[in-house]
Amino acid sequence: MGLPVVGMVGGGQLSRMTHQAAIAMGLSLRVLADATHDSAALVAQGVNVGSHTSLDDLTAFAQGCEVVTFDHEHVPGDLLRQLEAKGLNIQPGSAALVHAQDKQVMRERLRDLGVAVPPFAVVTTAEELSDFGAAHGWPVVLKAATGGYDGKGVWIVASVADAVDVLGSGVRLVAEQFVPLKRELAAVVARSPYGQAAAWPVVQTVQQDGICVEVIAPAPGLSTKLAIQAQSLALKLAADLGVVGVLAVELFETDEGLLVNELAMRPHNSGHWTIEGSRTSQFEQHLRAVLDYPLGATTLTARTVVMANLLGGVSPEDATDLDRRLHLLYARDPALKVHLYGKEIRPGRKIGHVTALGEDVGETRARARTGADYLRSGKWPS
Amino acid sequence: MGLPVVGMVGGGQLSRMTHQAAIAMGLSLRVLADATHDSAALVAQGVNVGSHTSLDDLTAFAQGCEVVTFDHEHVPGDLLRQLEAKGLNIQPGSAALVHAQDKQVMRERLRDLGVAVPPFAVVTTAEELSDFGAAHGWPVVLKAATGGYDGKGVWIVASVADAVDVLGSGVRLVAEQFVPLKRELAAVVARSPYGQAAAWPVVQTVQQDGICVEVIAPAPGLSTKLAIQAQSLALKLAADLGVVGVLAVELFETDEGLLVNELAMRPHNSGHWTIEGSRTSQFEQHLRAVLDYPLGATTLTARTVVMANLLGGVSPEDATDLDRRLHLLYARDPALKVHLYGKEIRPGRKIGHVTALGEDVGETRARARTGADYLRSGKWPS
Repeated sequence: MGLPVVGMVGGGQLSRMTHQAAIAMGLSLRVLADATHDSAALVAQGVNVGSHTSLDDLTAFAQGCEVVTFDHEHVPGDLLRQLEAKGLNIQPGSAALVHAQDKQVMRERLRDLGVAVPPFAVVTTAEELSDFGAAHGWPVVLKAATGGYDGKGVWIVASVADAVDVLGSGVRLVAEQFVPLKRELAAVVARSPYGQAAAWPVVQTVQQDGICVEVIAPAPGLSTKLAIQAQSLALKLAADLGVVGVLAVELFETDEGLLVNELAMRPHNSGHWTIEGSRTSQFEQHLRAVLDYPLGATTLTARTVVMANLLGGVSPEDATDLDRRLHLLYARDPALKVHLYGKEIRPGRKIGHVTALGEDVGETRARARTGADYLRSGKWPS
Repeated sequence: MGLPVVGMVGGGQLSRMTHQAAIAMGLSLRVLADATHDSAALVAQGVNVGSHTSLDDLTAFAQGCEVVTFDHEHVPGDLLRQLEAKGLNIQPGSAALVHAQDKQVMRERLRDLGVAVPPFAVVTTAEELSDFGAAHGWPVVLKAATGGYDGKGVWIVASVADAVDVLGSGVRLVAEQFVPLKRELAAVVARSPYGQAAAWPVVQTVQQDGICVEVIAPAPGLSTKLAIQAQSLALKLAADLGVVGVLAVELFETDEGLLVNELAMRPHNSGHWTIEGSRTSQFEQHLRAVLDYPLGATTLTARTVVMANLLGGVSPEDATDLDRRLHLLYARDPALKVHLYGKEIRPGRKIGHVTALGEDVGETRARARTGADYLRSGKWPS
């Protein structure tokens, strides 16, 4: 039908769910996956197996696509720039994406833009860390400037002694104040090359051990003032950084207001609820944005939407009993939406998510949590 | 993850949309397609190219699947019975499916079950047709007992002279009264092997030249009595005929009540609105049913949902201008949901559909029609 071809680098669940959205748009997502058993490679028709750190693999992949986008931030910036120099259409572009790839670059740029961020400093020595702790209090949060995800690459250290190993590891580190926060929020928006942007309601995210376990949309009890502030901030960042596609801005809500924690420039875990919870899902919106289509409506389809991540359980039975548990969960809650990523079950690994839609926040949260906990453990909450 | 493998015979848009639903369920639909450019073959990972009339192709395909289901009714019944005799799990089974494959068998069975159907008779000669017309009035509707779809295999004849060609064609024919109807409705339900069943609200379907062009959910102004009667009828037929999966019952609403027109035992055009319009789409529900999972909630997500089929336009430009039209349509109506099937554009061919959700029936219909008409013709309604 003469419709464009979109390539996504990375074969994880974000590609998998983007492929779902692509199907409705008449497209077939092409995926550059590490292996044929990757989450998206199991369901997409056009799969290249190759490395996202190989210029040859990236170039061969990109040349068949009108636009190339990403399900992770791990393609090295110099390769992105080389692809762009060849005239290939990479969205978001390397100049924007670096702010989701490098926490030092992001922190410095946001500070320069006047955006509130936690106090931070690049630390390379014990003395610098000691000074930072003395100035901003202990514990201190140390983050690898690049490569971290899901709590990996983050260390909360109570003293310099605590940080000896990580300081000696050769990893470039950003130290940040351990912010006393009330809760975490996320403002998710999308922006097209044309410059159109659209925001979903601000959500609350609940983390455990550095992993997002629950997202509540809209964030309960958030004042209109803070909600508008968070959305405006995300829209401003999308424009200032030249983001194309989905931008997720992870925020700390503190007594002093909002601080930016992290940026992601792709469909994001804090937006999975939009599949059923919004008239346009983040996956469809990401495709519209990178293809420079006008963006879709972000209206909610229910008063409250709660997504709970499904993490792999720890017992051997947890890895083999999923189908039986699905039967029982479907019977108990016929309106719960279960998403499975086709990934091998390993303890703590994100293998899917469940979404509940409802009127009452407490009840909807309980339904989502019950679903995710039961699928993980095989036990109903007491 | 130890989840079952589902195979679907036929590579059309119904398989394509079922694959979308399968992705969320952690599954990857396997498709038996006629060709690699079939609608579903463009987007699914596991595609067998083969013939649905070849026992060898069907057997090879089915042996890799926990259950085999269908996106059309064209697999010959004797092949289905041979597959069943091999112990393969075919859903719906041949004994149910014959009622969607053979209009004579269907009419006779429904009559025996006491279900209201239009007056009908098998006609093989001009004399039999003449007698039928004399008894039930002209015009008479002649239907090929097997193989018809989208108005193909249906002839409305004003006299015996009109029917000379079709009577001489060797096609087995069922004659039916040309029923004076108020409108057409459809009752779509699903049933699992366990015997659980679920119904969506009864919809109104609008046909042009024998092709469904619009579906309105719920059917506007339908009395509660008739709605319940239609749903009960569909649920009873699903149980009596032993249907597994989605059953669509096409109905005539007449001054004397409801008459059954056709049956389909698969996801059906009259249920496409459920993708966004119901908490559980007909595609997810069909998968749940054939896998004997408990069924999902059929709650609506909006007061009114209207689906308009997108038919291929007639001018050469219609086949090349779709992407530009999509840009303009997305800009005009950001909440409209467009589904494209990846099919080559030919005049009158179903190449996609659009769904509008809203409060007011008239306004929602206008949005859906505007979207479908514009994508087809490149002209906004005046």
